[in-house]
Amino acid sequence: MRCARCQTVCVPRCIDWRDDAVLLLDQTVLPHQERWLRIDTVDGLVDAIARLAVRGAPALGVAGAFGVALAAREVGRAGPAGAVEAAARRVAEARPTAVNLSWGVDRALARLGAGAEAVLAEARAVLAEEVSRCRAVGERGADLLLDLLATRPGSAGDDPGERLRILTHCNTGWLACVEWGTALGVVRVLHERGRLARVYADETRPLLQGARLTGYELAGMGVDYRIVVDSAGPTVLANRMVDAVLVGADRVAANGDVVNKIGTYPLALAAGRAGVPFVVAAPESTVDAGTATGADVPIEDRDPAEVLSFAGTATAPDGAGAYNPAFDVTPADLVTAIVTDLRVIRPAPAATGVAP
Amino acid sequence: MRCARCQTVCVPRCIDWRDDAVLLLDQTVLPHQERWLRIDTVDGLVDAIARLAVRGAPALGVAGAFGVALAAREVGRAGPAGAVEAAARRVAEARPTAVNLSWGVDRALARLGAGAEAVLAEARAVLAEEVSRCRAVGERGADLLLDLLATRPGSAGDDPGERLRILTHCNTGWLACVEWGTALGVVRVLHERGRLARVYADETRPLLQGARLTGYELAGMGVDYRIVVDSAGPTVLANRMVDAVLVGADRVAANGDVVNKIGTYPLALAAGRAGVPFVVAAPESTVDAGTATGADVPIEDRDPAEVLSFAGTATAPDGAGAYNPAFDVTPADLVTAIVTDLRVIRPAPAATGVAP
Repeated sequence: MRCARCQTVCVPRCIDWRDDAVLLLDQTVLPHQERWLRIDTVDGLVDAIARLAVRGAPALGVAGAFGVALAAREVGRAGPAGAVEAAARRVAEARPTAVNLSWGVDRALARLGAGAEAVLAEARAVLAEEVSRCRAVGERGADLLLDLLATRPGSAGDDPGERLRILTHCNTGWLACVEWGTALGVVRVLHERGRLARVYADETRPLLQGARLTGYELAGMGVDYRIVVDSAGPTVLANRMVDAVLVGADRVAANGDVVNKIGTYPLALAAGRAGVPFVVAAPESTVDAGTATGADVPIEDRDPAEVLSFAGTATAPDGAGAYNPAFDVTPADLVTAIVTDLRVIRPAPAATGVAP
Repeated sequence: MRCARCQTVCVPRCIDWRDDAVLLLDQTVLPHQERWLRIDTVDGLVDAIARLAVRGAPALGVAGAFGVALAAREVGRAGPAGAVEAAARRVAEARPTAVNLSWGVDRALARLGAGAEAVLAEARAVLAEEVSRCRAVGERGADLLLDLLATRPGSAGDDPGERLRILTHCNTGWLACVEWGTALGVVRVLHERGRLARVYADETRPLLQGARLTGYELAGMGVDYRIVVDSAGPTVLANRMVDAVLVGADRVAANGDVVNKIGTYPLALAAGRAGVPFVVAAPESTVDAGTATGADVPIEDRDPAEVLSFAGTATAPDGAGAYNPAFDVTPADLVTAIVTDLRVIRPAPAATGVAP
């Protein structure tokens, strides 16, 4: 991909450390504006996190770690005791339910005793680890999908000319995951290998991360893609217009239930009925052995205003209420495979390719 | 319902004949403006139909018949031969795929030989028949749902204190059906009988008929309702937050497959999995014995622009494509019952209340 900033062929990152500051792409104005923010204060970073200029679990982990690096520089050697810790807490609390954010803060804070440069080095390590994890997810996921394609009924085997059509939901690319992406990282590897035919991307109401952000990433990769309203995804599956559903995960329970952006579950239902593989791509850290099933995961109820208006225009009558769950639970028996940076989990191998 | 116009308790109609003209509620500016249009020319009516100021199959049938009444008056006794027929054709072609529109035109045109007053009388008859058909659908549907409630496992039988929670999709009320509604007509009867607890209404992307129009109707009835994004409907079902799904139909095939607004099929999948009844309410004329299955119904692909923007704001990158099917097909085995003005059809009685 040729970068508009450096004019070389590079891999885009949504957040990085450059010239003593955090550089991040403001996701609130995509896809119509590419605005890079240079942030050199803790206050600036807290604001950027709170207003979702940076979002996505892996990117938030990196932002958290860089936040501590900023704090360590601001406070300096002569600063009052506990000042860096207090600033770090403000970063972690910019989005209190984002586990990765406080995890990233804690990782960097643990190195504070060794000085500000050690904190920054740790934050850079967090970034490098996220990138390498997602790269591993992408390669493993592409291998799995090509295997599924080669072994499905009527396939000519591993025909290198056969290309995959994918349905995806929400945004799981470099905008969420620093550099590579989880589900969209798999898409990218398929594209690089010349094995991708087309992507259908759910627009992903209420915040339209699919239309806005995944559309932006797919356009940047030069992939043939189509946006669909979320409720049309099941029809795309019923019509056998795709070879697989590929989504990310916010949490995977011990039994294989998958908690992901609202709208994932109906795709799994329709994939099961159509006999199309339903594949989840996520870092291993998403698999939570301490949570027995999806029913044990608390689901965030978000502000009804997200549903009742868009771009400042009210869509429902004044006084209307809304129910706005951020995530849904896909039962393990509908999940063909969960691909992580370390392994492939198959919660429901028997269900693959079998229509009811 | 107390009418804001006449200040009496009346039943709202989206279209009627008053003072030598068609009176209709402009649905393009709902829910934030209630603008009534008085239309006394064929040109004005063609324009109103084309820009969706009036929509919904039954309402379009009535609009078509009134259009011929307007034409007969405009042309008069001394007008050139064939002038009324030509005007009627323009009305019918204002939305060429709307079968009910040309059906209403033909009904009224058949009475032209008896004079303009006979044409108007026929148009009024078309309206009266639509109203009575929907009233019958509403009563029969309410009876059926209360039966299902009374006989479900764990129910206390026909407890008049037990009230239903309903999930619906798109708009199927008086705005679409002149005075009463199909699925929303059932909701209204339940409400009048004091047996309705709450309605969850899908917003219904891309054109938001659920948020805009169903929200408006439910608010007008004084019903407790919540808007949800379309992809959250399956979660409402998985969480057992409703007792039934209740939707309309654009066409029912001979085998019981239901063609309805895009987004209906995922609700049927989720209802089947949750063991919640999936009930369709539609006039008998929707049942098409000449179409064997849903696969035989041509599905209208609509303008990608409807998907790629939201309330006038572009949501996807410039140059993005979209796939925008207007309808989906719900297979008969997922349909608990189809309620018409004449009967109850049960394509899949065995499926009711049985989780997989």
